[in-house]
Amino acid sequence: MRKIARVVFLPEGKRGEAAPGESILKIANGLGVDINSLCGGFGTCGKCRIVVVRGGESLNDPSSSEKRFLNENELGMGYRLACEAVVSGAGDLIIEIPAESRVGRQILQIEGVETQVKLEPLVKKIVVKVQSPTLENALADAERLFAAIEKQFSMRVKISPESLRKLPMVLRKDSTVSVTLWRDEIVDVEPGVSDELLGFAVDIGTTKMAGYLVDLNTGKVLSVSSRMNPQIRYGEDIMSRITYVVREEGGLRDMQGAVIEAINEMMDEACGIAGKRKENIYEMVAVGNTAMHHFFLGLPPNFLGLSPYPPVIQGSVDVRAKELSVKMCPDGNVHVLPVIAGFVGADNVGVILSTEIYKSDVLTLAMDIGTNTEILLGDKNELMVCSTASGPAFEGAHIKHGMRAATGAIEKIKIARNFEVDYQTIGGAKPRGLCGSAIVDALAEMLKAGALDRSGRINLKLETPRVRVGKDGVPEFVIAWKDETSIGEDITVTQKDVRELQLAKAAMFTGVRILMKKKKVSRKDLGSVVIAGAFGSHINPESAMAIGMFPGVPLDRVRSVGNAAGSGARMALMSGKARELAGMISRRVKYVELAADAEFQREFLSAMYLPHENPELFD
Amino acid sequence: MRKIARVVFLPEGKRGEAAPGESILKIANGLGVDINSLCGGFGTCGKCRIVVVRGGESLNDPSSSEKRFLNENELGMGYRLACEAVVSGAGDLIIEIPAESRVGRQILQIEGVETQVKLEPLVKKIVVKVQSPTLENALADAERLFAAIEKQFSMRVKISPESLRKLPMVLRKDSTVSVTLWRDEIVDVEPGVSDELLGFAVDIGTTKMAGYLVDLNTGKVLSVSSRMNPQIRYGEDIMSRITYVVREEGGLRDMQGAVIEAINEMMDEACGIAGKRKENIYEMVAVGNTAMHHFFLGLPPNFLGLSPYPPVIQGSVDVRAKELSVKMCPDGNVHVLPVIAGFVGADNVGVILSTEIYKSDVLTLAMDIGTNTEILLGDKNELMVCSTASGPAFEGAHIKHGMRAATGAIEKIKIARNFEVDYQTIGGAKPRGLCGSAIVDALAEMLKAGALDRSGRINLKLETPRVRVGKDGVPEFVIAWKDETSIGEDITVTQKDVRELQLAKAAMFTGVRILMKKKKVSRKDLGSVVIAGAFGSHINPESAMAIGMFPGVPLDRVRSVGNAAGSGARMALMSGKARELAGMISRRVKYVELAADAEFQREFLSAMYLPHENPELFD
Repeated sequence: MRKIARVVFLPEGKRGEAAPGESILKIANGLGVDINSLCGGFGTCGKCRIVVVRGGESLNDPSSSEKRFLNENELGMGYRLACEAVVSGAGDLIIEIPAESRVGRQILQIEGVETQVKLEPLVKKIVVKVQSPTLENALADAERLFAAIEKQFSMRVKISPESLRKLPMVLRKDSTVSVTLWRDEIVDVEPGVSDELLGFAVDIGTTKMAGYLVDLNTGKVLSVSSRMNPQIRYGEDIMSRITYVVREEGGLRDMQGAVIEAINEMMDEACGIAGKRKENIYEMVAVGNTAMHHFFLGLPPNFLGLSPYPPVIQGSVDVRAKELSVKMCPDGNVHVLPVIAGFVGADNVGVILSTEIYKSDVLTLAMDIGTNTEILLGDKNELMVCSTASGPAFEGAHIKHGMRAATGAIEKIKIARNFEVDYQTIGGAKPRGLCGSAIVDALAEMLKAGALDRSGRINLKLETPRVRVGKDGVPEFVIAWKDETSIGEDITVTQKDVRELQLAKAAMFTGVRILMKKKKVSRKDLGSVVIAGAFGSHINPESAMAIGMFPGVPLDRVRSVGNAAGSGARMALMSGKARELAGMISRRVKYVELAADAEFQREFLSAMYLPHENPELFD
Repeated sequence: MRKIARVVFLPEGKRGEAAPGESILKIANGLGVDINSLCGGFGTCGKCRIVVVRGGESLNDPSSSEKRFLNENELGMGYRLACEAVVSGAGDLIIEIPAESRVGRQILQIEGVETQVKLEPLVKKIVVKVQSPTLENALADAERLFAAIEKQFSMRVKISPESLRKLPMVLRKDSTVSVTLWRDEIVDVEPGVSDELLGFAVDIGTTKMAGYLVDLNTGKVLSVSSRMNPQIRYGEDIMSRITYVVREEGGLRDMQGAVIEAINEMMDEACGIAGKRKENIYEMVAVGNTAMHHFFLGLPPNFLGLSPYPPVIQGSVDVRAKELSVKMCPDGNVHVLPVIAGFVGADNVGVILSTEIYKSDVLTLAMDIGTNTEILLGDKNELMVCSTASGPAFEGAHIKHGMRAATGAIEKIKIARNFEVDYQTIGGAKPRGLCGSAIVDALAEMLKAGALDRSGRINLKLETPRVRVGKDGVPEFVIAWKDETSIGEDITVTQKDVRELQLAKAAMFTGVRILMKKKKVSRKDLGSVVIAGAFGSHINPESAMAIGMFPGVPLDRVRSVGNAAGSGARMALMSGKARELAGMISRRVKYVELAADAEFQREFLSAMYLPHENPELFD
């Protein structure tokens, strides 16, 4: 016999049942109780903190992972991680979700840079009047449709298998037929008059995914949805996911299935918000780094991780939606933008496309910040690119009080000379944690105020209670005091957080330096600096420059463009010409392999300093 | 508890077990014991006669269907129909398969007419040497392959999804790659050097299917396999199958699944015989009448049966094998020849293609004899076609001693003035029954000898024991006496058999007459008469003319071409130009709807006479 425990979640009071072996995170998700989780329930982010108010004896003992993220005191107070706390008995449970673990409404950078693009999608809808067959002239259904299209539109077209299967019933419902064309192929037929013409653009990030539902009659974004990339359950970074695929039987299928399921959910959500039907999505354009590109298309990533890191295909790919199990119009097209190299993907092509660096008159440095950061340097004459593993620190992971850019996240920080802190939260709510832009601000401001030295060490000798050694023995700087926050504890930046960020920005800056050296240019030559990435749009460029994410340039030359990869995907969705451009770009860009550069190590170590070992680079 | 009966099949002595509810036919099939069955086990053909030697009490009582096919005497001797005899107890069973129910090795007309066709298949195999990637030039796998093909063959190509998925592993096994192209698309890649290039041509008949494995390097037919069309389980004729699809939930899927399963089995068998691998079949060409064409492609046949009978599509269709679940090279192409009208299909296009009527200088009449018979009349200037439901009598169904053209089938008959019969069997074996050509011979010879009058009545007043009233009260003519046969009974042609054949030939001749009338030509104008169809190649043209299957012409103008539809499919497999011709033919041929002709009824009644009410037509 199975024993069933009853569970109540506070503060909402949602109730449910739990079978032995289920984690609290899973039960909560099943009931629609949102709990913060960056790692997808693998005990590696420590964000899903809960308090067991009653019934702790019906749970397993705290795991080693929980002991890493929760101190003695917290464990004593009933703190657990929701993903690691597993039901083992049948006693009733009361679980409280503390404020810091609640999921606010996430602010996702959706707009990105909007570039002028003429609306010329490859899908279009036409309405034709089809003749009925007679005994004397019993022309086939398809040929009568072809004849009507040729007569009304002077076009010769083909027809897709699913459209052919639908056609007889559609024609018997109404001799007026709405025909959706992709290039010269009919991909859908509907009875009567319809002008719904939707497209979907997807940016598949290693950590985050964003989807945009676009009305292809107007080019307008109707709705947006986003998801954590569920592949996180198979590994946080690209290399561990490639390893999973190579080692596990059916690993590639798992990886592909996870991302496609998430895309289908995003489509559902975006259509729900906009009041549209998925069947009216006739084309999808996807971008992502080369590994995400391979996983999505089901291409073996085995050699992406092995020198010289060749992708399976560089050019763009078109494939029918049904072949990928993407649940839009089944014979609709899925277009995946070309990639540049093993570690510079279709997302970067999207960035180049939307920022128009490829036709820039001035020398431009662009950084697309994510779990991997791609760095571009060039102008209309030449473009170089490299990729660095900057890690997810900018996205709030691996940072003690890091969180996504959601309600209650501190997004801007100022530190006065007396170390008093002024901060601003998303939605004006009581603070719950720090999002990426706040962490960059914090470092820059601590550095300026003297709370941090150039090597990145927190100065414990200052006369302020904000600088202290934390309970776990790690030095830290208090951004918000417990009584100001909604999480019942101080929000701090720890020495460990500082180190994480130093590593990330050093990786990035090293890439910049090596590209500039190859191109034989100095920072004086940089006419423009572009910061892209969902995180990038919130960043304060002054802070970013202050900690040395890029070389010193006049501030008016720096601009944030948000999710430029997603913008590029939308441009390709809206215009066949943009796709041709993308193809041209992907072939033109010169990929620079950092691992092949002899000076990488030395440059990296110099870049660990704040802003750099050689501060003249930022004067 | 389930009771299990043991069963022994004589004469081979094969043993097995039987659970209650299983039919003897099913048990026999499971053990590989072949029992004749034309209807697929639905109790409608009466061909699967068995004798229960022991254990009758463990079977159900004889069904009404068995009582129709077996007389009292036979039932008393333990005769049953294998499909209707169902295990109901656990007693041991001994079952004898009498000779007439054994399946001989079927003689299938495979060669058909061979027309000169230049071997120019749309698939070809090339071998390329692909460069390895370097750190300085880490070009993607696909682009390195494209570059190699462009360098060696000056061709620009695309690549199919499955080939792309295979490519990385293939390249790591061997930098020399065998590439299969369909038009300008790579549909398969293999490591090393391979020149296997196979194609498969399929003729999907309403009753019978034939498949031809062709070496596309030489054009040679490597092996042949054939099957009854398993759709018979959903209905014997086209209309009842269409009704099944329209009425039953999932009916179209059933119908499509049945034919594709049979095609996969035929491919397996043909590859087994030739010692080849299915994965090396890169293209398949299918022909069939319009209903078979729709079932195979999963197109709704709903309106094929309703005036004015328009097909869903008339032009040829190309679709990837995997989309149809045909188990050859998954991205290989399946080409289906165009159809002409709702009842004149791709098989007929194949007939026109292979017989080259479309470029004939003389007026030609061609009949493709099957369950439906299509009739063509014309020359290089104009071609007309109609279709008649001639039924399966020519294929041995609905005929008391009818059987397929297999070992032991009587295939030729002569009847002397004294009514003595001279016959010839396939393989020289003791006779088991009559195949189609023998039935036509029998009618013609009985007519000549006076055993049959022009209205088709058997003359019971003759002084010969061969003419008699059978046990069931039906007049019959004895072709072979019991002691000459291997089935332990006389082989006869009954009055009912004569009527079946009269109906079939009258339908056919009516079509011929209406076409000739429309074209305003007489039999003197016919420069050539062509008989096509698997059955047609065995027929004696003199006999066929004698019973009035077609108008009287000098015998040297008549030729049998066998399975011309299959020949046409093979031509299209071997040549892209042949496909263009097929498209041209399908658009050029004028379809004549017999139902629209006011004189149909009167013509049909006149054609019931042997050879015709108006015998001058055959002088």
